[in-house]
Order: sequence, then structure tokens, then C-alpha cells
Amino acid sequence: MALSKKPTTGMKDILPGEMKIRDYVISVIKDTYGRFGFTSIETPCVENITNLTNKQGGDNEKLIFKILKRGEKLNVQEAVTEEDVTDLGLRYDLTVPLVRYYSNNAASLPTPFKALQMGNVWRADRPQRGRYRQFMQCDIDILGEPSNLAEIELILATTATLTKLGFRNFQIRINDRRILKAMAAYAGFAEESFDSVFITLDKMDKIGFEGVKEELLENGFDEAVCDKYLELFAAVEQAQDGVQYLVEKLGDFLDGEMTASFTEILSSVRATQEDSFELVFDPTLVRGMSYYTGTIFEIAMPEFGGSCGGGGRYDKMVGKFTGKDVPACGFSIGFERIVMLLQESGFQVPAGTGQVAYLVEKGIGGEALCRVMEQAKQEREKGTRVLVVRMNNNKKFQKEQLAGEGYTDFVEFYKDPLKK
Amino acid sequence: MALSKKPTTGMKDILPGEMKIRDYVISVIKDTYGRFGFTSIETPCVENITNLTNKQGGDNEKLIFKILKRGEKLNVQEAVTEEDVTDLGLRYDLTVPLVRYYSNNAASLPTPFKALQMGNVWRADRPQRGRYRQFMQCDIDILGEPSNLAEIELILATTATLTKLGFRNFQIRINDRRILKAMAAYAGFAEESFDSVFITLDKMDKIGFEGVKEELLENGFDEAVCDKYLELFAAVEQAQDGVQYLVEKLGDFLDGEMTASFTEILSSVRATQEDSFELVFDPTLVRGMSYYTGTIFEIAMPEFGGSCGGGGRYDKMVGKFTGKDVPACGFSIGFERIVMLLQESGFQVPAGTGQVAYLVEKGIGGEALCRVMEQAKQEREKGTRVLVVRMNNNKKFQKEQLAGEGYTDFVEFYKDPLKK
Repeated sequence: MALSKKPTTGMKDILPGEMKIRDYVISVIKDTYGRFGFTSIETPCVENITNLTNKQGGDNEKLIFKILKRGEKLNVQEAVTEEDVTDLGLRYDLTVPLVRYYSNNAASLPTPFKALQMGNVWRADRPQRGRYRQFMQCDIDILGEPSNLAEIELILATTATLTKLGFRNFQIRINDRRILKAMAAYAGFAEESFDSVFITLDKMDKIGFEGVKEELLENGFDEAVCDKYLELFAAVEQAQDGVQYLVEKLGDFLDGEMTASFTEILSSVRATQEDSFELVFDPTLVRGMSYYTGTIFEIAMPEFGGSCGGGGRYDKMVGKFTGKDVPACGFSIGFERIVMLLQESGFQVPAGTGQVAYLVEKGIGGEALCRVMEQAKQEREKGTRVLVVRMNNNKKFQKEQLAGEGYTDFVEFYKDPLKK
Repeated sequence: MALSKKPTTGMKDILPGEMKIRDYVISVIKDTYGRFGFTSIETPCVENITNLTNKQGGDNEKLIFKILKRGEKLNVQEAVTEEDVTDLGLRYDLTVPLVRYYSNNAASLPTPFKALQMGNVWRADRPQRGRYRQFMQCDIDILGEPSNLAEIELILATTATLTKLGFRNFQIRINDRRILKAMAAYAGFAEESFDSVFITLDKMDKIGFEGVKEELLENGFDEAVCDKYLELFAAVEQAQDGVQYLVEKLGDFLDGEMTASFTEILSSVRATQEDSFELVFDPTLVRGMSYYTGTIFEIAMPEFGGSCGGGGRYDKMVGKFTGKDVPACGFSIGFERIVMLLQESGFQVPAGTGQVAYLVEKGIGGEALCRVMEQAKQEREKGTRVLVVRMNNNKKFQKEQLAGEGYTDFVEFYKDPLKK
């Protein structure tokens, strides 16, 4: 039977050029997060299907690659539903597996636990440019830290990494679910309609103030409430200090301890940060995932319309596994987008040690070959990349090709040492 | 619904201690293979099921995790066979995907192409100690190099990596499929019985000469033929130079060019090699995979009974995808076994830069917190790993725990600077 040369639909082969950038980004991420005390961990790519379909993942749960039962457990002929034939699935994110991991291994993990995860996830999304069905995620999470030290460290670590990768003029937008709710409550929305209001608010970037108002009205909300709500956003935007404005304006709708902690995140990060980015309070920031309970944040890059990563606090998720809540906060970098942006900007991985190609004439063998290998060994021990290849008939073309791969020096070996 | 804390059957969570060793091994592998001119590539973990079930993988094809069709393509109720409900599968090795990758991308790849792959593979094997259903493989392959330069480089690169990881007194056993066949032909076995003979020969390690003879006789082979065959192995073992002995003894059964090339592999590696290992001609080496066409090799470690990796030449596999054969040779390291051996030997990852923990008294916030973060920033920029955590009530216990994680220095921050 004919074998197919193409990768499966929506997934891609990674060529050496892109791989070099990926490996470089991975090394910068590991190094930088390491300096912030994050520890690498790994979970299996495969999870029990019940863990993946428990409403933690929102729409992503519709995109799971499910795995067929095996052996006696599988009876295709009598099966009626998908549940009858599947027991496992490929993970669609790294947060659900992390929380399971933490629940399973908490006894052997430090408190707080600062985890770094880099791994593939899978979503059976409609394939489109720049989006693949297998992609790498890169998450840092701090479990067991209730104070805003978690948020501060997560933002500083993430921005330090992006800065080291050469990114400039980006924004970290920050908000808090509790500010979101307080603003909606103050305006007069009923609590049960918050989710619907936030779905509309989330489109502010795309449809603007007018668009948001229009959609809210279409959804049947009272115009006076909508106006009061939107005026609040306009006023925050005008204010010198948006958070302080809300504290004064919203009064008891806002918890004072929360806003003090939120303000401290802003001031601590700003006092310490690189000047490569701006930390901006953005009251329109919603973040889709329903599991967030407090602070939420997002990376906005000028080069790239959408978000390049984000995260927030999710203090109620460990409890779903263990019955006991543990404070948790995470920040995820959009690894694939970052690699894409670097590729598009013509980014070159900083040259390491030298690259030498040895061209060995065909027919060189025996002791002469031993001497070639010995010489290569000595150079390799110094850290040089040495490619030993047979010399082609068209030596000039071969050298051009090798130069394209980054080889800058060439050594030619002939049977007759006088030849050149 | 209750969520399960355990990883799925046969797969494992990787804890920070093991992860540290894995990351170290990965970095040594990437660095060392890089010096030999190998280039990292990646293929998707998921492949079309037809590529995975095409008899390239032998028994591994029985162990595939198959993925359920999605959307309209799936009709569980009317399905009769597994084929009706599945279109994809998780890869069970890295060789089949590599060959597909090469066939798909040959036009943008150099010749010869030296590929390094590190990635997870999945096999629905019966779970047992030290064997998991998801495990990392680490393969190097050279495609497009017909000469023995491929074998020499593969063996030197693999052994350099193992040596750098601290392994000593190991063996690389080497043989050639064509020597295997010539010996069997010389003894008088018919060509159609070679596979059966080699399956028995492969057990030499476990059942010895007598056991092999017994099994051959049980399988109905002529005793005179069996004796002639086994005497040959005994004579090779006695000989000063086993290959040379066979050249003289087997005469036209052996191809002279092949044995000259084989001898050259032995002499080139021996002339250049580290003294951490021995390269041994082993005429009993069979290697299971049916796709090998020439040289085959295997790593034997004294600490570990079985093989710790292996490989060989498979010149006929690219042709299965493209219709045109391309010379190919690969060497795979048993990554999981190597990590296990390092763990069991009490291996410690070489300490990098310093590790400092900042213990920050609860209640420190505002400007005082900014100063802490600024100090951490400066140390981190020097490469130090700085953990910023809130101080526990039991500070002594906290420090002991942190010391266990590798933190050697502690700085304490109090609201009242005079306190200590």
C-alpha cells in the first residue's frame, strides 16, 4: 500500500531552520525561568478522558483527540456512543494536567511549588494559517502562594524571558475578575447576566465602545445600565490612576484588600521591570477561561494583533481533584506565536562556536580515514561543530550548500596529499 | 464527577528530581551530537494510521494507540471494525516518521542529512517495572550517505555522548546482516529458513550455545548443519580477528567489498575512540527489526543486562515512500534506561550557578517589596537562581526544605530591618 509522505492534516514537520529557533527559544525560557526558581516537570501527553471532559476546558473540550480503547475493552460492533469506544485523550492544555499532577504528588513537592512546563498539546481545530493541531505550550505556575508575590514573580519572569528574546514595546495588560464583577454590579447588571456581559465586553478591541453598546442592547440590557457601565470605562481611561479612580467611584462594590494587593502588583512590577514593556491596567480584559478567580493578565505585542500569551489566578481548581482548594496562579507564553514572530522578523540565532566542514575525497579509507576522524575528534572536543562528509564531484556547489547551513570553514582531505 | 489524580495506566508524572537529570541528559545529547553536525528536527506525535500499520514496525504495530475519527467522519453506531472508527495513531518509534519526513522534505534538506530526533513515542505494552507506555526516544540518523562514514560517525557520536554522561566499560557490539546470512548459508541452511534461524540465534545471550542448538534441532533443522553453524561461532570467538577468520573460511559466501568496509568501521572507530568502551564484532547479534539491510549495532552496559540502544543500516525504507531508495543508517539511545541508570547510581547533575532563597516576612509590601524584587533582579541577571518566597512561621523547617531543593544561601527580609 502506498504510504503518505505528508504529515497528518493540520500538523507539521519542523524543518532544521525553524527547529534552530525553537531550540534557542526553549533554552532562553529554561534558563530565565530557572533563575526565577521555576522547576521543570512533565506530565504524560495522554490523560484519562474523564479528566479532559470535566468542563474545565470550555470550548477546547469539543476539540479533543480521543484515543480508542484497546484489547478486550473495545467492542466496536456493539458500541453506540463515543464513550463506548474511548477511554483516553490527548491533552488540550497544560493546566488541567498540572493540577492533576499537583494533586497526585503534592506530598513530594515544595510549598510554594513553582512549575515550568513545556510540552505539546493537541486540538482538533479547523486548520488555518499559523494554527496547527499540535502545538507547544509553555506555562509557568505557582501553587500554594496566596499572596500577590505569585503574580509579581510570574509577570517579572515572563517579561524577562520575552525581553531576552529581543521583544520590545509590548504590553502586559492586567485586570482582576473581581474588578470586572464590581464594575458590572455598580452599573446595575444582575449577577446572573455577568457572563453574557463579559462575552460582549471581551470584544471591545474589535468592535469598540459603540459596538459593545449595540450588542449589549441587542441582548436586551437596559440602556441606562449600559451607559453607566460604558461611561465607567471611559472615565478609567481618562483617569491618572484607573484603579484609584474605581476605588473612589465604586466604594463598597470593591474589596479594599483586593485593590491594595492589585495596586501593589502594579507598583512592584513597575519599580523592577525592564523598559521593554508597559504594565497596563485594562478593565476591559476578560480572558475566556471560566476557572480564573482573581487577577488575570495578557501579553499584547504590536507585531501581532492578538494575544501572545496570558494567565491568571485560579484558586478553586485543585479542590476539584482533592476536595481542598490550593491557591494557584499561572502565566502561559504563546510559544508558537513567538517563534513565528521571530521567524518573520528574520531573527538569527546567536552564533555559537565555529562550524567546520571536512570534505573527504571518495576512496579515502584505512589509516587516512583514521587521521581524519582523529582530527575531527580534537576539534569537537573544543566545542566546534565538525561535519565530516564525502566530497562531491561538484565541490563548489557542495561548499555553497554547506555555507547555507552555516559552515564557515572547510578542510579538504585528498588521497594524494599534494592535490588540492 | 470525581476527577482522577493518577496519571493514566502505564504512564508517569515526572517529578522535579528526575526532570533535572532528564534535562541534563538532553542538554549533553544536543550539545555532543551538535558537534558531530547533527541537526534537530521534529515530526508530529500523531501519524496517519496507514503509515503506522505498514509492516515496518513489526510487533510494535500491535501496540499502537489509535485515535478516534472526528466529526462527520465518525459513525460509531454503524461501525463494525476498528478501521471504521480510526484514522490516526500515536507514533511507536521515530524511524517511520523520520523516513516520511525525509520523503516529504528532501528537496529542502542537505545531502547527506544528519538528523537528531528527541521525542516521545507510545506503545500500549503491558505495564511493568521501568517500562512505560509513553517514553522518550533519542535517535540520530544519516540519510544519503552510502559509505561507511555513516556508521563510523554514528558510533563515535553515540559513544562520545555516553562517555560525557559518565558511562564507562560499556560495549558496542557490531555485526552485519550480510555476515549473518553468509554464515547461515555456509553452514547449509536454506535461505527461506534464515529468519527462523536468526530468531533462535538471537537468544544466544540467554540460552547459550547448547540452548541454541537444542532449539534449532527442535525446529527440525539438520544436526550436521547446526553443528557446522555453531562451530563457526566458536571458531570466531577463538580467532584473533573474527572478521578476517570468516573472510578466509567463508570465501565466496562473503562479499569482499562489504567485509573491507566493515573492517574499516572497526579500525576507524578503534583508532579514534575514547577508552570508555570496547567495539566488539559479535556474529550472534541479530537485532529484531526486519528493515535493516547491512551493518547493525547495539549498546551493552554492564550495569544493565539488556541493550541500552542500537541501530543499523536500512537502505530500503525511503523507497517505500518515494519509490526511490536512499541509503540510511541510524543509532538510537535508550534514553529512559540511561536516565534510570543515572538515577540508580545516585548521579548528581553538575551544580550550575548559585541558588539563593529570599525569605520575605509576611506583610512586607509596597516599597519594601519593590526593593526585594530589585535585589532579586540584580542577582538573577548575574545568572543566580533566586527563589522569592514568603517566610513561614517555622523558618527553620522551611530552610531545611529549601536546602533539600538545592538552595545553599538564604537572605531574610523583615518589615523591621533591625529584627533578625
